[in-house]
Amino acid sequence: MLKRKLRMGMVGGGQGAFIGAVHRAAATMDGKIELVAGAFSSSSKKSKASGKELFLDPKRVYTSYEAMAKTEAALPEGERIDFVSIVTPNHTHFPIARTFLKAGIHVVCDKPMTFNLKEARELRKIVRQTGRQFILTHNYTGYPMVKEARQLVRTGKLGTILKVVAEYPQGWLIDRIEKTGQKQASWRTDPSKAGASCCIGDIGTHAENLGRYITGLEIDTLCAEFTTFAKGRRLEDDGNLLVRYKGGAKGILYASQISAGEENDVNIRVYGTKASLEWHQETPNELVVKYSDRPRQILKRGNPYLSAEAQRFSRIPPGHPEAFIEAFANVYTEAARAIADAVEGKRRGKYDFPTVDDGVQGMAFIETAVKSSRSATKWTRMPR
Amino acid sequence: MLKRKLRMGMVGGGQGAFIGAVHRAAATMDGKIELVAGAFSSSSKKSKASGKELFLDPKRVYTSYEAMAKTEAALPEGERIDFVSIVTPNHTHFPIARTFLKAGIHVVCDKPMTFNLKEARELRKIVRQTGRQFILTHNYTGYPMVKEARQLVRTGKLGTILKVVAEYPQGWLIDRIEKTGQKQASWRTDPSKAGASCCIGDIGTHAENLGRYITGLEIDTLCAEFTTFAKGRRLEDDGNLLVRYKGGAKGILYASQISAGEENDVNIRVYGTKASLEWHQETPNELVVKYSDRPRQILKRGNPYLSAEAQRFSRIPPGHPEAFIEAFANVYTEAARAIADAVEGKRRGKYDFPTVDDGVQGMAFIETAVKSSRSATKWTRMPR
Amino acid sequence: MLKRKLRMGMVGGGQGAFIGAVHRAAATMDGKIELVAGAFSSSSKKSKASGKELFLDPKRVYTSYEAMAKTEAALPEGERIDFVSIVTPNHTHFPIARTFLKAGIHVVCDKPMTFNLKEARELRKIVRQTGRQFILTHNYTGYPMVKEARQLVRTGKLGTILKVVAEYPQGWLIDRIEKTGQKQASWRTDPSKAGASCCIGDIGTHAENLGRYITGLEIDTLCAEFTTFAKGRRLEDDGNLLVRYKGGAKGILYASQISAGEENDVNIRVYGTKASLEWHQETPNELVVKYSDRPRQILKRGNPYLSAEAQRFSRIPPGHPEAFIEAFANVYTEAARAIADAVEGKRRGKYDFPTVDDGVQGMAFIETAVKSSRSATKWTRMPR
Amino acid sequence: MLKRKLRMGMVGGGQGAFIGAVHRAAATMDGKIELVAGAFSSSSKKSKASGKELFLDPKRVYTSYEAMAKTEAALPEGERIDFVSIVTPNHTHFPIARTFLKAGIHVVCDKPMTFNLKEARELRKIVRQTGRQFILTHNYTGYPMVKEARQLVRTGKLGTILKVVAEYPQGWLIDRIEKTGQKQASWRTDPSKAGASCCIGDIGTHAENLGRYITGLEIDTLCAEFTTFAKGRRLEDDGNLLVRYKGGAKGILYASQISAGEENDVNIRVYGTKASLEWHQETPNELVVKYSDRPRQILKRGNPYLSAEAQRFSRIPPGHPEAFIEAFANVYTEAARAIADAVEGKRRGKYDFPTVDDGVQGMAFIETAVKSSRSATKWTRMPR
Repeated sequence: MLKRKLRMGMVGGGQGAFIGAVHRAAATMDGKIELVAGAFSSSSKKSKASGKELFLDPKRVYTSYEAMAKTEAALPEGERIDFVSIVTPNHTHFPIARTFLKAGIHVVCDKPMTFNLKEARELRKIVRQTGRQFILTHNYTGYPMVKEARQLVRTGKLGTILKVVAEYPQGWLIDRIEKTGQKQASWRTDPSKAGASCCIGDIGTHAENLGRYITGLEIDTLCAEFTTFAKGRRLEDDGNLLVRYKGGAKGILYASQISAGEENDVNIRVYGTKASLEWHQETPNELVVKYSDRPRQILKRGNPYLSAEAQRFSRIPPGHPEAFIEAFANVYTEAARAIADAVEGKRRGKYDFPTVDDGVQGMAFIETAVKSSRSATKWTRMPR
Repeated sequence: MLKRKLRMGMVGGGQGAFIGAVHRAAATMDGKIELVAGAFSSSSKKSKASGKELFLDPKRVYTSYEAMAKTEAALPEGERIDFVSIVTPNHTHFPIARTFLKAGIHVVCDKPMTFNLKEARELRKIVRQTGRQFILTHNYTGYPMVKEARQLVRTGKLGTILKVVAEYPQGWLIDRIEKTGQKQASWRTDPSKAGASCCIGDIGTHAENLGRYITGLEIDTLCAEFTTFAKGRRLEDDGNLLVRYKGGAKGILYASQISAGEENDVNIRVYGTKASLEWHQETPNELVVKYSDRPRQILKRGNPYLSAEAQRFSRIPPGHPEAFIEAFANVYTEAARAIADAVEGKRRGKYDFPTVDDGVQGMAFIETAVKSSRSATKWTRMPR
Repeated sequence: MLKRKLRMGMVGGGQGAFIGAVHRAAATMDGKIELVAGAFSSSSKKSKASGKELFLDPKRVYTSYEAMAKTEAALPEGERIDFVSIVTPNHTHFPIARTFLKAGIHVVCDKPMTFNLKEARELRKIVRQTGRQFILTHNYTGYPMVKEARQLVRTGKLGTILKVVAEYPQGWLIDRIEKTGQKQASWRTDPSKAGASCCIGDIGTHAENLGRYITGLEIDTLCAEFTTFAKGRRLEDDGNLLVRYKGGAKGILYASQISAGEENDVNIRVYGTKASLEWHQETPNELVVKYSDRPRQILKRGNPYLSAEAQRFSRIPPGHPEAFIEAFANVYTEAARAIADAVEGKRRGKYDFPTVDDGVQGMAFIETAVKSSRSATKWTRMPR
Repeated sequence: MLKRKLRMGMVGGGQGAFIGAVHRAAATMDGKIELVAGAFSSSSKKSKASGKELFLDPKRVYTSYEAMAKTEAALPEGERIDFVSIVTPNHTHFPIARTFLKAGIHVVCDKPMTFNLKEARELRKIVRQTGRQFILTHNYTGYPMVKEARQLVRTGKLGTILKVVAEYPQGWLIDRIEKTGQKQASWRTDPSKAGASCCIGDIGTHAENLGRYITGLEIDTLCAEFTTFAKGRRLEDDGNLLVRYKGGAKGILYASQISAGEENDVNIRVYGTKASLEWHQETPNELVVKYSDRPRQILKRGNPYLSAEAQRFSRIPPGHPEAFIEAFANVYTEAARAIADAVEGKRRGKYDFPTVDDGVQGMAFIETAVKSSRSATKWTRMPR
């Protein structure tokens, strides 16, 4: 282990941004990482105000990520940031990540990874060339019970996987709140910032990643229906997909932003020949396992009967719930381990976090879904 | 009201058949109907044994439905059966129903209504020609909270319906139990008895009917993926569909018989512009209503705050659960009302039960799904 | 088995009474019992109207139970009623039951069994003297998953029982609806009809019976707090008890009729040295078993992994819920078996229904709770 | 606001201690507090190792709290610790807290506050004399939905409170793990360290505090049954209480450490004349409100329809669960606000955290329960 905390910088996440605060709380939860620098906003004033609120040294509060990368890279090791967390809108991920990677700084990056698949592939090249660590915050895979689910599949407890149902219903975009200036809604529904997809790009990709993380299955072909329910909106706010996985498993995957009263219950059901499992993000400490011939089981976080992989990411005893920030922190736990190894010059180990390859997969999924959604031949008409 | 109980006959439902006993318990629950005759099995011995167990007059236990129709029709009104319940496998529904209808006897018939759409349309003609009552036992619509759901939609509480997600997961056919002689499995997986579909025909059609009953929406086009997971089985045991409703709403509809550990949790979520609802058959006394701007509500059966339509089909106070047989009985409650009106020569009223038109819709749905499942053009390949 | 249906009479349960209709639906559910006679009300007019609605022979609709007992007893076997169901208010149970028992007619009786413990003991004597069957409808013990719970305890799956928590919260008496003429509320809050207790007598006794049925434990001493929250009401509407069982187990038992928004969720938790269980009447098809060192289990009705005792009382496949009326019917299933044995002159077998001894225990429980509630010495004051 | 982070010291919480890590994560979650000093263990070696793991300046890692208080108090403001968190076993809380308070250092202290009521009252005096802030970490009151519950009571939404049921079931002490050297179990079951009570002192006091926080009700008299189920254990491992509140409300309060399979589901139901509420710590983001005449409501954390008090303690959007550490952090949020005000010389404001008065109440509750449990006169015997 390093004899000091890892030093983290942040791009984005200024005052009023929800996800920046989550990244900071997650990163620092276990006392292994400290925030020391940031370019929190493209507005110099907002960036400085944010840095002040975070009690940062004003010299290390930057107004552009380029300046930050350059200045930080020039500082001596142990003083300069070890890694940067990128928490800006999609369209800026690629140039920012490229800049820091090329400056020799490890990167933690929000999802979806880039603006499009082309950038994603380019970024993958850069990650390989620079040899820096790149961690994509598909945070839902940080939940201990998701890790348990993955272990159940890997160790054959479910048998051969036949079917996956992954859902991410939300309701926050049911009205055109982007017209009221709501910041998140504004850029997520704007194709110049969000890319070719709103709903599938923002949250469908979480469902896809969750399914792939747990089952290891890769999508072969898919059939997508995109709908824009809010009139005048330029990107889809609802997406339903049928999926064929390589190897023969089938899937249903859907995401929605217009499902009234739904909040963030991303959930998954995985059906195998021996057993099936079910997990819901809104009650994340439980994992249901269903059998054909035995009583259902409710596995609960923190218990000794869970796999080592699930145990390793638990902080507190069973029955005391852990939740979103703790799961997010688990991504940082592994990021910190990988970055510390790199800083210390150790051999690269095995780390349990989403990588640049996951990011490429995610972007390929989004683009394929968009393409499929435009194909009209899939529909069969009911007889009159 | 009639001054006597209605007299019911039954075709099928002999010893060992599950659904026959359910029909009998449901029909007689409220003391308005009595079973007086039956052709319980094509085996004369089994039919007689069944009749004996049911304490029937041996003279009215028949060994063929044709004999039953003929003999009963010749008895005087008040002695002969007022209606027959048909609880045999799919492929026999049509000839049996036709026979009784033409003999002037009202019919209650299990679903799916017929072997194929052609028969369904023919049956509709016969029903119209004979003027007899025809009740299709899509029993899930008998649940009071399903009726409440329908009222919420009808009275505009949900606003315009945008999306419907209807599921019927089961796991009982995960192994090829049809090879062990299990009766239900044998005929349901046999195309000569079940028709062109197993899973969608048996239970997908319940999900479709439930969605249509609650929302009134009719499917315009659909896109279906059928899979036969059990090797050697001749019909699909899993079906996933994307759906476009007339008017612009979208849907996901799926049924499965290979989902390990799932029992009979047919369930539905309906999303509207103002609110959404969720109902699960395994906890049928509750209906969840979700709002964008208000707390979720849990509506519970039997309460005065429910609609008259939901109240009318409740037997006992709130908190004392009602369940499957009671919901089934509610179909018979309405059937009895309609048949009694006919027997008494009253004008035909409005009855809340699934009709021959629902049966035609159901068969059209099954055939369209089968057709769509055979179309290969719907899939878009993920990039390599 | 008898070659005919058993013939049932009913005392009470006229138009507007909830529990009479439940008894009739429950008794006739499996086609083994038919209602043939009744004294449905002390009002001759109401009794006749009720009999007409039930399509009974007017000659067998009585205006007093005494006339009914006398007349029926004089009919030949096979024509006269085999048993009577008593569904009147508490204070009349004893004289009615005595009359029928002495007339040689078996008795099914609603709970609490009598007006007081003295009557209960007297009734026990009469039952023994007459040799007639006496079945007390503590209906919650008819649920299959309650029977499974009992088996889990009996077969040692829970180890030694340490603690029992049994609750029956309701809210229907939060206002003084007895003043509005609500029939149930009127007699239940009237000490001349309900006896010395309202809440504990009506529903606390169900919780006590449920605990005793599942665990076999008998209360040794208890400590009760009764409260009458509705001003002017003459009996308690809320009762909380600490309990010491013979053998060292401890318990908490409470019932309430003033708990706003609670309906009928009688529930129980039983804690043993090896495992514990939890069951709720409002979701009766599930039984939760909790272990110290293994995942929780959800046992679901109708599955082959359940005990023979639970299986025997299931009518339909798993996932299709059974509920209140079916559980009630299970009491009648056993009653019918016992009465048929008696009618056929068979040896008395082992039957799984609540007996006159359970009734005596229940009345002793009520009277002890009332007595304890009046003792003031149990309270320790907090320091100032 | 302070222009720097508050500086925190810690007594206890060395390697292997669960609660120390929780306090540190909670305290630092929002970036307003940093850990700078500690006496983590009475073993000098362990304290140093812990300090090293936490990347602390070795000069500020102490081997006795006395040394820590003395040395830190002598440092200049802005360098010395602003407050200390005491996370040691019960019997040491009082001397440690006294020492820091007298050294002018604010105190955050784990519960139960002291070894006995006498110490608690003495501590209250010291807090008043020194004018320092004293925060007791009854952490469950930090949950936003508990704060919402409190607001529902305060604003009269529930009407007059009639009844409270508060439970804290655990199963971890079902075996005598104290004999295996398990550290927590060892001191909690040792009267020389835990005080006069194990189960009620450790967790019953949480249930009492939760009830008092939400309802404002104070216990007038109580009637307690303590049981030591594990043979040879010297303190009770299960406690059941009937409670009378000042003003006429009644209550049931129980805690258990021998309830197999229970983890940490501290929960509460509060019944009022207008409505009732229910909250469970294992699903802390939901609050159920039940009405007599309207559908139940599920209130979910983070929604705009909640009170300002509940909103103020939410970090992330609805549907993304918050849990134990976040709730704990909310106690520190208010502690930080109060301590910062004191450091800045501002007037003392209104803060929402448990105080020394709550600690005195808690100790009075424990001692009264112990006393009541020894009184034998409360039991009424069942008749033979």
